[in-house]
Amino acid sequence: MEVYLDNSATTRCSERVRDIVLHTMDAAYGNPSSLHTKGMEAEKYVRDAARKIAKTLKVREKEICFTSGGTESNNLALIGSAFASRRRGKRIISTAVEHSSVSHALKFLEGHGFEVVYLPVDRDGVISPEALEEAVNDDTILVSIMHVNNEIGAIEPVAQAGEIIQRKNPGALFHVDAVQSYGKIPIRPVQWGISLLSVSGHKIHGPKGAGFLYIREKTKIEPLSYGGGQQSGMRSGTLNVPGIAGLGEAAWEMHENLEENRERLYQLREDFAGRVTGIEGIVINGRSGRGSAPHIVSVSIPGVRSEVMLHALEAEGIYVSAGSACSSHRTAGSATLRAAGLPPQLLDATLRFSFSVSTSMEEIDYTVEKMRELVPQLRRYT
Amino acid sequence: MEVYLDNSATTRCSERVRDIVLHTMDAAYGNPSSLHTKGMEAEKYVRDAARKIAKTLKVREKEICFTSGGTESNNLALIGSAFASRRRGKRIISTAVEHSSVSHALKFLEGHGFEVVYLPVDRDGVISPEALEEAVNDDTILVSIMHVNNEIGAIEPVAQAGEIIQRKNPGALFHVDAVQSYGKIPIRPVQWGISLLSVSGHKIHGPKGAGFLYIREKTKIEPLSYGGGQQSGMRSGTLNVPGIAGLGEAAWEMHENLEENRERLYQLREDFAGRVTGIEGIVINGRSGRGSAPHIVSVSIPGVRSEVMLHALEAEGIYVSAGSACSSHRTAGSATLRAAGLPPQLLDATLRFSFSVSTSMEEIDYTVEKMRELVPQLRRYT
Repeated sequence: MEVYLDNSATTRCSERVRDIVLHTMDAAYGNPSSLHTKGMEAEKYVRDAARKIAKTLKVREKEICFTSGGTESNNLALIGSAFASRRRGKRIISTAVEHSSVSHALKFLEGHGFEVVYLPVDRDGVISPEALEEAVNDDTILVSIMHVNNEIGAIEPVAQAGEIIQRKNPGALFHVDAVQSYGKIPIRPVQWGISLLSVSGHKIHGPKGAGFLYIREKTKIEPLSYGGGQQSGMRSGTLNVPGIAGLGEAAWEMHENLEENRERLYQLREDFAGRVTGIEGIVINGRSGRGSAPHIVSVSIPGVRSEVMLHALEAEGIYVSAGSACSSHRTAGSATLRAAGLPPQLLDATLRFSFSVSTSMEEIDYTVEKMRELVPQLRRYT
Repeated sequence: MEVYLDNSATTRCSERVRDIVLHTMDAAYGNPSSLHTKGMEAEKYVRDAARKIAKTLKVREKEICFTSGGTESNNLALIGSAFASRRRGKRIISTAVEHSSVSHALKFLEGHGFEVVYLPVDRDGVISPEALEEAVNDDTILVSIMHVNNEIGAIEPVAQAGEIIQRKNPGALFHVDAVQSYGKIPIRPVQWGISLLSVSGHKIHGPKGAGFLYIREKTKIEPLSYGGGQQSGMRSGTLNVPGIAGLGEAAWEMHENLEENRERLYQLREDFAGRVTGIEGIVINGRSGRGSAPHIVSVSIPGVRSEVMLHALEAEGIYVSAGSACSSHRTAGSATLRAAGLPPQLLDATLRFSFSVSTSMEEIDYTVEKMRELVPQLRRYT
């Protein structure tokens, strides 16, 4: 049996996504910047994707800027807005548990004279709204908080954060990395006071190499690169029509059945978590039930190194992740788990299981069964 | 009849490219950064593409850095290397006919304290090696020259330029925008002293949203964005496996029959140019024969506005470009044509016809025939 439970690393494209990618490669191969019909035909797919995505967020079509993925979206949001706002202040507020494409972009900004405050998290990986309230001051130009943590599945209080920022410094921009939440949890940028929101295609059964950044109207950002002036100059370069069309389709598909899928995933998660904690010593990190994202389960297995467990599961056809897969081949201790105060002996004994809409109860059964066999076996060798 | 002669704007994916994109979307959907087999399977396709591309340039696999396309490659090369070299000097040398993703990146660098010298071109759009020799001094950190001009098809003397740079200032980096030449003209970065070379997938029947930058070993550049540290930290973000696999296949396919295709394209070009100049007043810009690229013909039609001619041809099923299509819907006078000293009345009366390996003689016949009919008709209305 093959059980892919690494959907927070990447997902398989849906059939509808595959179909539209293939179709646009053939039927809409023109350059959207061309003045002739071939260009206009291709542009129609881009606009259609923007319209679909805008609907899922209840924002405007022209506020969607297509990128090559989550990393570019996060960098464009942070570096772009920090440099565009540098005359207003130097202070940026973020958290200790951000994805590397946020935390490393912030490190770059620190090297360029910006001051970054990293909010701590509790044992469940969640920031405290009070700490944010204290941190936001008049000099604050930007706040960046992820919506769902990629390793623990913690849901950060972004709606409340938006309200706090609005109250304490309405001029500060608010960026949300929604790579792990979009398509799984409803997001309302306007209501929540979000100025910038990052999304990646390949985490929602869309194509790799495609993502978007929601840029609220009138938000000033500097581009990361320059050229033909596509997308209002925010992101030059020939538009990746098949990737964008696939991204739009994936976004739409995820939102068609969002509530239903979310409920089903929460049931799978609860079932899995309940049965896995029955294995001696195993701990689930983060809040239980609706307090965490529906698709991510962080499991600490005292006495078994995560890499050993990962490969033992792999031998049984089960694919999971040690920490986050988004870093290139690094297995170094996870900053998120450390920030959440995991005891040192668990830092390197933690796996992430991440589900998708196509994960079945049979797959969960099989996985739990294999873990029951493997954990005691592997502990004997330690 | 439908005749697509806008292949310098973008091309249709080849069947082999389409097949490998579709195959990798399904069979290699893992994240190459993942530690398990699904990741390794995906990574194999990335390495295979790098190996194929490296072979076409006779460089090393690890010198290929995958990007989202030509614009990103050019920006990464210029902004990345200028900032990494800023302690060594401030002078950059380029030309007056670069693509907007080079010229606008250079404008950005001028705003950050760099001094950019723009070499003029002759009536054929070609720079003078002597002018380059004079311009390169000890303070020069970077020279950027395109290989084939996207509007006129001029071939710049990059091999000679490399030799001049080596002689006058071996510490200066040499970037070549090869977006319009790669796959059509053989390129030898090592022999020619090139440090950085930009290529785009969708100009060679590969996928949109995929390109690469050749970065000669030990060349110091700063990344444009930060994250998981993929591709030696030069370009973070989950690798676009299907896009990269498609790019590798396209690169390989273009080089399998490069000589043969080049000869055939030169014959088409010569035939087309010869017959089109038979129409009263029509002028071909740039050098004739082997002096220009095999696939681009810049045609000035005195007395007919380029946009009018473009749409008249479109009505006959023929798709061409007014200047370059790479700029988003801008029809403003072309900087390249102005730099080449085209008389003002021709600046807005010039079309680009660009061929591909699948352009047929029947298509050329049809196009010439239609032009013979249309040009006198349209002149009557002016």
